[in-house]
Amino acid sequence: MEKIFRQIPLYRFLMVCNEENSDKRILDCGAGGDCPPLSLFSKYGYQTTGIEFDEEQLKRAQKFGDSHGQCLGIQLGDMRTLPFPDEHFGNVYSYNSIFHMKKVDIEKSILEMKRVLKSNGLMFVNFLSTDDFRCGEGPCVGDNEYEQMDDVPVIHSYFTHSEADRYFEDMKILYKEVRILERVYEGELIRQGFIDYIVRK
Amino acid sequence: MEKIFRQIPLYRFLMVCNEENSDKRILDCGAGGDCPPLSLFSKYGYQTTGIEFDEEQLKRAQKFGDSHGQCLGIQLGDMRTLPFPDEHFGNVYSYNSIFHMKKVDIEKSILEMKRVLKSNGLMFVNFLSTDDFRCGEGPCVGDNEYEQMDDVPVIHSYFTHSEADRYFEDMKILYKEVRILERVYEGELIRQGFIDYIVRK
Repeated sequence: MEKIFRQIPLYRFLMVCNEENSDKRILDCGAGGDCPPLSLFSKYGYQTTGIEFDEEQLKRAQKFGDSHGQCLGIQLGDMRTLPFPDEHFGNVYSYNSIFHMKKVDIEKSILEMKRVLKSNGLMFVNFLSTDDFRCGEGPCVGDNEYEQMDDVPVIHSYFTHSEADRYFEDMKILYKEVRILERVYEGELIRQGFIDYIVRK
Repeated sequence: MEKIFRQIPLYRFLMVCNEENSDKRILDCGAGGDCPPLSLFSKYGYQTTGIEFDEEQLKRAQKFGDSHGQCLGIQLGDMRTLPFPDEHFGNVYSYNSIFHMKKVDIEKSILEMKRVLKSNGLMFVNFLSTDDFRCGEGPCVGDNEYEQMDDVPVIHSYFTHSEADRYFEDMKILYKEVRILERVYEGELIRQGFIDYIVRK
């Protein structure tokens, strides 16, 4: 029985890619961790490539790939300077990852994702919103940008509902979803805020 | 290759059912249509039952089941009076369906869904929110309840963000997601509003 990947919004992206794009080359920016969603795309016949900034997260993803007999093509790298030529991928995404940088670096990364995406290619990217319960927590280092403790200090950048639209002004927004998710996490009810985009170049 | 079902929020419900419930008996209230999500649950080993009010929608679901070699167990019925004993199902859901009734009938239906759900069982139900672009359209027949034209006149009931919480006061809310989805539909950008609940009895 196939595993359900916890990155639920990527099921919509996969559906759109399947329905609207014959190009099966896909890039994940922030591809590491113990449940790498490239595995899902691989099962659907995609030729996968991933970039991961953190060595530990890269190892976790490689361990997952090994134990599932999948070669996901994830390598160490920085999404602000993607080591791929222009218009190389039919599909590019970054899930729950890009907001772990300052907004100046988010912008660089989105420009890079757009650069390596083919014309008419599809892109998913999501942001934290200012609805999130952690927005405002920790030392402020910019415009709704905070240094917050996860296991180590990590930047979290938060966006108002329309703030990120400008990144996609030269693209076509197919889906934009503003989500406020309340859920029980480690015994506590938490409130998370996200804004997900699916766009076409 | 497995089809991706367009009812994306049900992937989270399926994940939670898989992870938190060994009972594989599931009921869909409003189970008809040309892409019945019970098919997804069936693929994951669930013993499926469905109730559908509309004969045409029932036929579409049966046609889908036939062409996919699946017996989904969908029958004509009314979710306000479910023809099942108390505590019969481990999992019950209603997706994009319950809001096509007046609120008095929605309440009856939720009481019925709770009645047929086992203790500790899991339930998914979603509502239209007042953020939806159609809220306010057509003749008002109650409290944010409108008769609107789809192919035929259909009731649509809309909820404020916390209004439906009271249905689940005797249950545990595991996930509550308020979603505002903008998407291109038949060439137009539309704005849909939903509130999804996953609760445990």
